[in-house]
Amino acid sequence: MSANATQAVRAPTREQCSARDAADTLAPLREQFELPPGIIYLDGNSLGAMPRTASARVAQVVNQEWAQGLIRSWNDAGWIDLPARVGAKIGRLIGAADNEVVATDSTSVNLFKVLAAALRIQAKRRPERNLIVSERDNFPTDLYVAQGLADLLNGDAGSGYQMLLVDGAEELEAAIKRDPALVMLTQVNYRSGRIHDMAAVTARVRRAGALMVWDLAHSAGVLPVELNASGADFAVGCGYKYLNGGPGAPAYVWVAKRHQDSFWQPLSGWLGHAQPFNFESGYRPAPGISRYLCGTPPIVSLAALECGVDSVLAAETYGGTFALHAKSRALTDVFIELVESSHTASDLTLASPREATQRGSQVSFAAGGALGNGYALMQALIARGVIGDFRAPDVLRFGFAPLYTRFVDVYDACEILHEILATRSWDTAAFHQKGAVT
Amino acid sequence: MSANATQAVRAPTREQCSARDAADTLAPLREQFELPPGIIYLDGNSLGAMPRTASARVAQVVNQEWAQGLIRSWNDAGWIDLPARVGAKIGRLIGAADNEVVATDSTSVNLFKVLAAALRIQAKRRPERNLIVSERDNFPTDLYVAQGLADLLNGDAGSGYQMLLVDGAEELEAAIKRDPALVMLTQVNYRSGRIHDMAAVTARVRRAGALMVWDLAHSAGVLPVELNASGADFAVGCGYKYLNGGPGAPAYVWVAKRHQDSFWQPLSGWLGHAQPFNFESGYRPAPGISRYLCGTPPIVSLAALECGVDSVLAAETYGGTFALHAKSRALTDVFIELVESSHTASDLTLASPREATQRGSQVSFAAGGALGNGYALMQALIARGVIGDFRAPDVLRFGFAPLYTRFVDVYDACEILHEILATRSWDTAAFHQKGAVT
Repeated sequence: MSANATQAVRAPTREQCSARDAADTLAPLREQFELPPGIIYLDGNSLGAMPRTASARVAQVVNQEWAQGLIRSWNDAGWIDLPARVGAKIGRLIGAADNEVVATDSTSVNLFKVLAAALRIQAKRRPERNLIVSERDNFPTDLYVAQGLADLLNGDAGSGYQMLLVDGAEELEAAIKRDPALVMLTQVNYRSGRIHDMAAVTARVRRAGALMVWDLAHSAGVLPVELNASGADFAVGCGYKYLNGGPGAPAYVWVAKRHQDSFWQPLSGWLGHAQPFNFESGYRPAPGISRYLCGTPPIVSLAALECGVDSVLAAETYGGTFALHAKSRALTDVFIELVESSHTASDLTLASPREATQRGSQVSFAAGGALGNGYALMQALIARGVIGDFRAPDVLRFGFAPLYTRFVDVYDACEILHEILATRSWDTAAFHQKGAVT
Repeated sequence: MSANATQAVRAPTREQCSARDAADTLAPLREQFELPPGIIYLDGNSLGAMPRTASARVAQVVNQEWAQGLIRSWNDAGWIDLPARVGAKIGRLIGAADNEVVATDSTSVNLFKVLAAALRIQAKRRPERNLIVSERDNFPTDLYVAQGLADLLNGDAGSGYQMLLVDGAEELEAAIKRDPALVMLTQVNYRSGRIHDMAAVTARVRRAGALMVWDLAHSAGVLPVELNASGADFAVGCGYKYLNGGPGAPAYVWVAKRHQDSFWQPLSGWLGHAQPFNFESGYRPAPGISRYLCGTPPIVSLAALECGVDSVLAAETYGGTFALHAKSRALTDVFIELVESSHTASDLTLASPREATQRGSQVSFAAGGALGNGYALMQALIARGVIGDFRAPDVLRFGFAPLYTRFVDVYDACEILHEILATRSWDTAAFHQKGAVT
């Protein structure tokens, strides 16, 4: 829906955008990244840009530590400490204390660990509880993993744990009243960018005697996240989005101190053992978060992740995640104003919260009318160098990583969008839908 | 135990070792690898050497595909196909058909998937079976993962699935007679290098109505492995040993065609979904082996793994895994002869099968007498540039990756060993035991 009658006044000019970049204290942080010329990259919420340090660091891991150091590098180059070291750095971004986070495995695998741990805790405390509450529009892998675990635990009986998927805040509140075992939510919705109030939801869930599991995939690195302050029980998150860890970077897992020693999670691989190099036949979990390690982590990818996390930590001097979120809100506000300022965008409907405080660092528009489902429009944008992505069934998704996105980028992207829309220069027939990884 | 009275006659000279290198048809394959000068690397069974191609390939993934291609590389650079493409290449080394293997996650995580799948199959077919049979000296992570799964399934009741750990062939046979649900073995023992007869054991296990799960960590890439011909049910393996995939390289999983569509494994992440980019809230498993994918794999590490697998496939022209194993047998025979040819090694006892056909590509010696547990001796060897490793409680372990180990390397390593032993130039006090990753 276009609202150009009122929006046109507010939409900034390119000069005004330039001025905002000049005044942006975070602007120098863009220099940390290698960005392709001629591209406006609005998909850092899916795959973060490459920090320049990652190139040299990965070369060092491969050409020196692996090729020359060989097996000695597990100790000499500190590979064995990487999951804890990178985890501790991520902890600074999500309100965790030292020694509460490890970086390893994928988000899906880590989620399996914490869901299993949470259900085990509840099986002891509140054995009658069998509901796993989540949102129908949570990122699907979270739902699939929870389904897989419930199915495994239920066995052939097919009864026992049940998924309860809700739509919207009212249904969530009603579900919490049904005494679930746990509630599993993603703080920022992958499609709409809507933010959950972590503290309020966690408090509500814990008052109901349920455990709270957060997925931070779309929040860590762009929002202030306060896990300990919120009282949350478990969290997982992704390394390759706003943490800029590279394609398929290892994920991370956080467990509240009060739970760490109460349970050994079922993916009990050797690196989670109290003494992995004793090669004992029986498992004894390591103290603390280390027991959430499983097998040997992919060191080359993990080293790149460390560079990515460092690129976010570099913002600490400038106000950290608070400053990053402030810039996100500003960038996304400008984008919405610019898109809606032209009648050409009348077939695009804002699919993210209009109120900036309720939005993560992305803006989605649902396509309709002459745009079809919008897939061809996104392809036309990409062909013109504006990279966002498409999420079925009809969502054009644009991410605004505040570390490297400028206000003029937002302006220029909207100019190109309006040109394409004005000239109707997309070809529905020429494009078929292909996937891209969130 | 030294046997120098008889062995001295057989032990080859350096010239004879040189001559064997000159006659070795596999010798040119060494040129594929970057190896540090002044080092004799006898630990390729723990972390394989770096194929030169990996350096350029990783740089390409990072500097081009990630930095320049960004999110587009999931399609344009084929990242999305990597698990299947690398899996298919690994399949050629282990007697699997096309589309039966995916490369992803760690060995431990993949083992969890297949054990859960196997137990689910048996719960339907033979619900009374509750024994999981393995060897007490299997690599510990395999035992830990099986324990973790059994514990998860048993829940607080603490009854249900039980581990039955055996020592030796007789106990294994007795255990199979007890009608287990499954038998899980590592084809080549990580400590002794002893090989299981895959075909014979699998046939015996299947006749008993149990399912057979193989771990190929120490066999794939150095031995002929014939999964389909053996009738095995499931297998997993490691990417960073003889496959030269780099530190913590992703692992792989194979499932016999007859099982692939009968079950969706519990780590049901989005990449195992039939249509991951439809973003459906309900899980529908992909057809075939793809359902054993879970979350997004670490692409940089996976790209390095492909180079490693290619370095092994390069042997196909020269006889493939049959030729590699023949060279392994020859290298390890020479090593044993040379070690035992000197009275200086009288405190070392062969801890691997003496018969070469029963050995993988490694030789272990147990340390005793004046050597203490042998840890300090291994440190002295490493300080002199001969890199093997130590496995608690008292094992000196030497790996002989046939792709890049020469007969003169074996000779020179033994010369250094004997010098250290003759001059007793190790300092027990100077070294304390530290771990290194198998």
